Amino acid sequence: MSKGVYIIGAGEAKYGELWDRSLRDIAVEAGLKAVEDAGIRTRDLGAIYMSNSLGGDISRQEHLSALMSDQAGVSSEYIPSMRIEASTASGGAAIREGYLAIRSGEYDTVMVGGAEKMTELYGNENIDITSSILDREWEAFEGGTPAALAALSARKYLKDFNVSKDVLAKLSVNDHLNASLNENAHFRNKITIQQALNATLIAEPLNLMDCAPLSDGASSIILASEEYVKKHSIDGVKILSSAMSQGPFALHSRECLYTVEPTKLAARKALKDANLKNSDMSFVEIHDSYNIYGLMALEDLGFAEKGKAKDLIEEGIALNDRLPVNPSGGLKAKGFPYGATGVGQAVEAYLQLKGKANKRQVKDAKNAMIHNMAGSGVASVVHILGVE
Amino acid sequence: MSKGVYIIGAGEAKYGELWDRSLRDIAVEAGLKAVEDAGIRTRDLGAIYMSNSLGGDISRQEHLSALMSDQAGVSSEYIPSMRIEASTASGGAAIREGYLAIRSGEYDTVMVGGAEKMTELYGNENIDITSSILDREWEAFEGGTPAALAALSARKYLKDFNVSKDVLAKLSVNDHLNASLNENAHFRNKITIQQALNATLIAEPLNLMDCAPLSDGASSIILASEEYVKKHSIDGVKILSSAMSQGPFALHSRECLYTVEPTKLAARKALKDANLKNSDMSFVEIHDSYNIYGLMALEDLGFAEKGKAKDLIEEGIALNDRLPVNPSGGLKAKGFPYGATGVGQAVEAYLQLKGKANKRQVKDAKNAMIHNMAGSGVASVVHILGVE
Repeated sequence: MSKGVYIIGAGEAKYGELWDRSLRDIAVEAGLKAVEDAGIRTRDLGAIYMSNSLGGDISRQEHLSALMSDQAGVSSEYIPSMRIEASTASGGAAIREGYLAIRSGEYDTVMVGGAEKMTELYGNENIDITSSILDREWEAFEGGTPAALAALSARKYLKDFNVSKDVLAKLSVNDHLNASLNENAHFRNKITIQQALNATLIAEPLNLMDCAPLSDGASSIILASEEYVKKHSIDGVKILSSAMSQGPFALHSRECLYTVEPTKLAARKALKDANLKNSDMSFVEIHDSYNIYGLMALEDLGFAEKGKAKDLIEEGIALNDRLPVNPSGGLKAKGFPYGATGVGQAVEAYLQLKGKANKRQVKDAKNAMIHNMAGSGVASVVHILGVE
Repeated sequence: MSKGVYIIGAGEAKYGELWDRSLRDIAVEAGLKAVEDAGIRTRDLGAIYMSNSLGGDISRQEHLSALMSDQAGVSSEYIPSMRIEASTASGGAAIREGYLAIRSGEYDTVMVGGAEKMTELYGNENIDITSSILDREWEAFEGGTPAALAALSARKYLKDFNVSKDVLAKLSVNDHLNASLNENAHFRNKITIQQALNATLIAEPLNLMDCAPLSDGASSIILASEEYVKKHSIDGVKILSSAMSQGPFALHSRECLYTVEPTKLAARKALKDANLKNSDMSFVEIHDSYNIYGLMALEDLGFAEKGKAKDLIEEGIALNDRLPVNPSGGLKAKGFPYGATGVGQAVEAYLQLKGKANKRQVKDAKNAMIHNMAGSGVASVVHILGVE
């Protein structure tokens, strides 16, 4: 690829239940931290892509991109911005737009931010709003919720491959362990397999520890062109490839309840474009909004055959194992602020590949795959990042 | 510009109060009509960009891009898509993303669609939801509504430049006249100056005929690369330039109540990049969500000095005058389906420049400027289109 695109800075507002902070506060915090980290000035930005999924539903605030730019004090620079929305894959989609915009030659640098304020939801309203990412008429109106759909996939997967719930639990335990080392994570507590297995039931067979939380949070990265990093002698993290794929929306339209075809296609294309293999990845950040989706992703991304992710998990997915999974803490424990999630994965990959991940540093990290998925699997975005 | 991008097809679902049709129905209708018009197959599409502003607020349906792809039967092609949102400028922003994506070399063809279902709003809920495009905390919570903000600009403009309301009324009369020739328009009835002046007051000094309606509607265009149109000998309409600018969000943060700096900056850049002057434009489509915004736009876009748009309007803005304004019928009469609006302007420009606008054809149309604005002017997108 001749026209390289690099991540040159990253910033984050802590994920969690941020009752005293507004959507604009956290979006601005992450954005300005990323600008500072990149060592640029806001006026140097060519454009701002802002990922957000539910701002309209929850806060009755659309056009978050403009609000965030304004609050960050960059409105006097008249920098164009827009919001990118692809449900829970909004973050990955926004990175992709920033990447393509730089490759088009239009901008030298862009900010890609993601922010979501989930905690103002409560009660039935909660389910109604989070179900906005499903097919409203064909799924949500019939009682489908994100958790119910994940439970369908889990039930069928566990039965077909004779997999015990321990395997799912291990993914959550791993997420919590890594998040205990991430000061921006929503949950810093470690959990045991027994705690994971004995939590309150949500949608059988999934319990509370199988489901990612509703988190507030914001993440931001700065992208720059190859010319820009060369000119300014910046040591960035290269985006080796970007791929997105989208299939049938409603779960009932898919051929298989536990294969996400868009994940398979996006991963295959991303690996091909980067000219790399799964075994070249130093770690992977997967979209485990439910741990069953994490399990499925490990297979669809090519790290294990279908039905065999349990073997990979038994071998070990911790920071010092062959394939560390979710060093950030993942969606289960770092947190799941819908539209910010995908950008947060890029923040983690940037820190790891720059060797700045402190206590959760993956040793000699060279290449990483990050995987952001929409809803129950209607779309997936895969990016491969690397350092020389 | 070496890497040309062309519009090669356009389609539209009629704008109006479509009580018997859903958001997905109209989005799909416009999209498939555009594909048919372009003479391509859906599987040829590299990506789908879908513009929508209020789907989450109104219909509790996010991720419209995926829904639309699925309903159009293209999910089996696994074509990536995402929603672009920049308030009422979502359509212009989506065109810009399609344009940049093609210039990046990633795709040969993309669909840019826009759809909005506004009519399920009613009562106070209406104002609450349409105010989602304002600064919720600083404007909407204090009682600001889109109409109230437009009224502030109108009052100050009319006073400062000693302009009578007749001038505003003439813009609405012109829109209705042109829309009477557009079978996809929301309002096909002609109105007189007296009718325009005597309508029910909405927010003084603006009455019902000064305000664009809440319309349902969907528009779609197909973009293709220069290589693609040459290879297939397609006679497209060239996107000569694309520019976007964004400034302070809340109206009270701006230096002037009747100057939209983002419109000025975007127009200046678009003209420069296209190497054209205002006088080269065969017609212009302006974002007149309120006719005062139309008046301001004519000035900010460079067709008249500040305070002098009245002279231009007195000279005549009809289809056979020197500068036809809104041959489509504009936002006032063709209609104002928030996120579809900007794409609809491109549909009109495409039809006009291809000589396919039937009874409302602007004679010898060569170049056109289309102007899509967000809310009360936080952002503007300007495209210049042309045929050889």
